[in-house]
Amino acid sequence: MRTAELHQPTGRVLVVVCDKGEEPVSAIGDALDRHGLRAGRVTAVGGFEEAEVGWFDPRQRDYRPIAVREQVEVLSLVGDVAARDGRPSLHVHAVLGRSDGSTVGGHLLHARVWPTLEVIITEVSPELAKTVDPETGLALISGSGS
Amino acid sequence: MRTAELHQPTGRVLVVVCDKGEEPVSAIGDALDRHGLRAGRVTAVGGFEEAEVGWFDPRQRDYRPIAVREQVEVLSLVGDVAARDGRPSLHVHAVLGRSDGSTVGGHLLHARVWPTLEVIITEVSPELAKTVDPETGLALISGSGS
Amino acid sequence: MRTAELHQPTGRVLVVVCDKGEEPVSAIGDALDRHGLRAGRVTAVGGFEEAEVGWFDPRQRDYRPIAVREQVEVLSLVGDVAARDGRPSLHVHAVLGRSDGSTVGGHLLHARVWPTLEVIITEVSPELAKTVDPETGLALISGSGS
Repeated sequence: MRTAELHQPTGRVLVVVCDKGEEPVSAIGDALDRHGLRAGRVTAVGGFEEAEVGWFDPRQRDYRPIAVREQVEVLSLVGDVAARDGRPSLHVHAVLGRSDGSTVGGHLLHARVWPTLEVIITEVSPELAKTVDPETGLALISGSGS
Repeated sequence: MRTAELHQPTGRVLVVVCDKGEEPVSAIGDALDRHGLRAGRVTAVGGFEEAEVGWFDPRQRDYRPIAVREQVEVLSLVGDVAARDGRPSLHVHAVLGRSDGSTVGGHLLHARVWPTLEVIITEVSPELAKTVDPETGLALISGSGS
Repeated sequence: MRTAELHQPTGRVLVVVCDKGEEPVSAIGDALDRHGLRAGRVTAVGGFEEAEVGWFDPRQRDYRPIAVREQVEVLSLVGDVAARDGRPSLHVHAVLGRSDGSTVGGHLLHARVWPTLEVIITEVSPELAKTVDPETGLALISGSGS
């Protein structure tokens, strides 16, 4: 276990509202780039008309894709942003709700928003750094970047 | 996609603890009104003895209600507050856990708390504004209100 | 319903990264102790190779354990920290995602991390106090501790 005590001296909060038909992973990434926000907490709610989430397979060392081909509520989108090679890297997991209330979820690979996705990102600073874990090939937070 | 870079200059955090038997949507709304908090991030955990959640039906343009008539853990309550017609408007989605660990979720319509619901609301400022989307009739965040 | 309007004057954010094989409840508790952080909001994402979550049984007045014996995505870990008898007390609920995207969740009793768990804890201050509820035996937030 590694801990880092950071601060929120900027108090910056980035609100990203995705419109109908947008792909949220790239939209959030674009917003992070544009505002130069490289570390933070992410939460969101909204709806998707379709999505693909992933379960990380320890043997294959890759995400197994799970297709969701129906209108779902985005019950939670929780995750973080950390810097990887100097660029913001988004890591968010989604729980999605079907018309009968049953749920499906995973690592958010991509989706199509309908009717909205309301994302709140609060900056933490100094930035968090991600490095590639040799065992899994995943970019994991390794500590404070400064 | 629209983005707004806001700040937390006040550092205000509203903690709302709902007691046994309370209805959380109205209790949280009352607390927001009383403290004049009109934009923020909401998270909560606790338990419900019953709840009704909704799935937004694109054809009916309304929430289809899903009744949950059993004691459930509130596994997550995630959402936001934004101003609609100058009043705080709460938008929260819930994931609820049954006695066997299975889950059910949706847009939180109403519930009865048991034994507690611990809600943390962090203010963002200036306020977010919601306007009614003509296609769905839903009040969606449209940008920064100031 | 009780409300407390608190502040984030410190701006402290504690990032805890749990490594492969660690038990997250004790690791997070250790980190809270070490940094003297006694009230805050907790969110996390990552993965577990096994976990035990609980559903609070109103009749038994205790958690009924639910074993999860497979690799799962930690889709959300949401909760809070409050002071109980002067020590930080962690209250987090988990939603876990299986290889087929189905979900299981409850109050997080214990787990084994794989490959990572990225936890963000933002301090609120003054601290929140928990006291034992005589009806359930649970330590519930009772208000502001100062």
